[in-house]
Amino acid sequence: MMKRTVFFVSDRTGITAEGLGNSLLTQFESILFERNSQPYIDTTEKMQEVIDQINQITEQHSLRPLVFSTLIDDELSAMLHHSQAMVIDFMHTFIDPLEKELNIKSSHSIGKTHGLVQDGQQKSKIDAIHFALQHDDGASFVQYDKADVILIGVSRSGKTPTCLYLALQYGLLAANYPLTEDDLDKTLLPQALQPFRNKLVGLAMDAERLQKIRTQRTPESRYASLHQCQLEARKALAMLQEQGIPYLDTTATSIEETATKIRMLLRKTHP
Amino acid sequence: MMKRTVFFVSDRTGITAEGLGNSLLTQFESILFERNSQPYIDTTEKMQEVIDQINQITEQHSLRPLVFSTLIDDELSAMLHHSQAMVIDFMHTFIDPLEKELNIKSSHSIGKTHGLVQDGQQKSKIDAIHFALQHDDGASFVQYDKADVILIGVSRSGKTPTCLYLALQYGLLAANYPLTEDDLDKTLLPQALQPFRNKLVGLAMDAERLQKIRTQRTPESRYASLHQCQLEARKALAMLQEQGIPYLDTTATSIEETATKIRMLLRKTHP
Repeated sequence: MMKRTVFFVSDRTGITAEGLGNSLLTQFESILFERNSQPYIDTTEKMQEVIDQINQITEQHSLRPLVFSTLIDDELSAMLHHSQAMVIDFMHTFIDPLEKELNIKSSHSIGKTHGLVQDGQQKSKIDAIHFALQHDDGASFVQYDKADVILIGVSRSGKTPTCLYLALQYGLLAANYPLTEDDLDKTLLPQALQPFRNKLVGLAMDAERLQKIRTQRTPESRYASLHQCQLEARKALAMLQEQGIPYLDTTATSIEETATKIRMLLRKTHP
Repeated sequence: MMKRTVFFVSDRTGITAEGLGNSLLTQFESILFERNSQPYIDTTEKMQEVIDQINQITEQHSLRPLVFSTLIDDELSAMLHHSQAMVIDFMHTFIDPLEKELNIKSSHSIGKTHGLVQDGQQKSKIDAIHFALQHDDGASFVQYDKADVILIGVSRSGKTPTCLYLALQYGLLAANYPLTEDDLDKTLLPQALQPFRNKLVGLAMDAERLQKIRTQRTPESRYASLHQCQLEARKALAMLQEQGIPYLDTTATSIEETATKIRMLLRKTHP
């Protein structure tokens, strides 16, 4: 298998450089990429260290590394472009055309991007995390009226990770309520949820997948038996459908996908 | 203030398109951007709906929208490029040069990027979230030996959100332990932490910031008084320094930044 070294260089966290860089690399499956993250490259000294590494690898392997960069600073970026690497520049490639289109000069300043503490935004994310934790697994119904969304589903259908992702990524107030066997034996929605019907989103999951996940947690328990999982999955789905609650199938979707789809649902129901 | 409509178009979650797109837009502060996310655009019908919106806005405002795209599919991408928008194409701009550099054709296939469920990766993130929740706020020390990192700091110094972010973003097993007044009155590390000294990272915070955060939670309490915050912040910092525990100041850093810096620390201490 062919190997190639890849650097992600950023003057902040590098999350964006890694995100888009990795998306591009997945299009070249037959190559084994050795990844090397270089966040907080914000001085010429740090930049020179990275360049020394790049040039050393180029000489060792007779093959230049790929570098995905979100550097903003013109001087640091110029240094990188003068290294021996192939530089994919996610900022400067687009800054020029955007300046022309918007007919305005860009500020070319570091720290304006996502890494910066924006006090309000940061606070709302932290509040949202604490909200998710306080309202995890039906722990409290006190502030359901403040929730942006209340996820319902059987145990291990993905409620907690999805709530936390909605909080961390978007600052949404997400509560979750587990549908227990008692709940599922009734045809009506659990009483605590009835006043908040328009905030509910169901998470449904195939019994086989549910069994797999539960078995990892408590092997050979009734809770993790295929019979029990089939029963709960079927009854939960029936309740969601009968009650007309919008729901998502989380059997084969990642946390990020489920969260994105919930945002799309919320936009439709609460535009 | 000038206004401009912006679309983020993706065949998956759109997280990457929004991340880099917003980074670029922060370089043009004097313009007010109206943002419009369009995830899961994966059929020509959905694409046509977006294009109709784009063209309608162009006619209404006599100003074409900006579109940040991570579409992979050639047909959908071509449709978008034929709309009236200014298209910033985060994928195709780089796919061609990468194909030349790597001397290989790309797969041009959707779903290879981050949105896809990669079973192992997904499982490890979910396990990491449950680990963070089980080991939040000193709730359990049972599996400290499995932890990748144990964050220590006074109440509300940012431990919980940081642990959850490390879990969700990187699948790291992150526990956290709150330094209480009792702990801070001693000069030694709390006993539960002593065997895991090499996994500890401290979070330090200015007393003023701590007071602000605590006041939002429980106003006019002893816990939130400036005096108490000064006492705890000072003693905690002294403990971290005396015990030689690496630490980060979280006073003015975002969750993402703190998490990235922790990863950098771990790489240095456990390369």
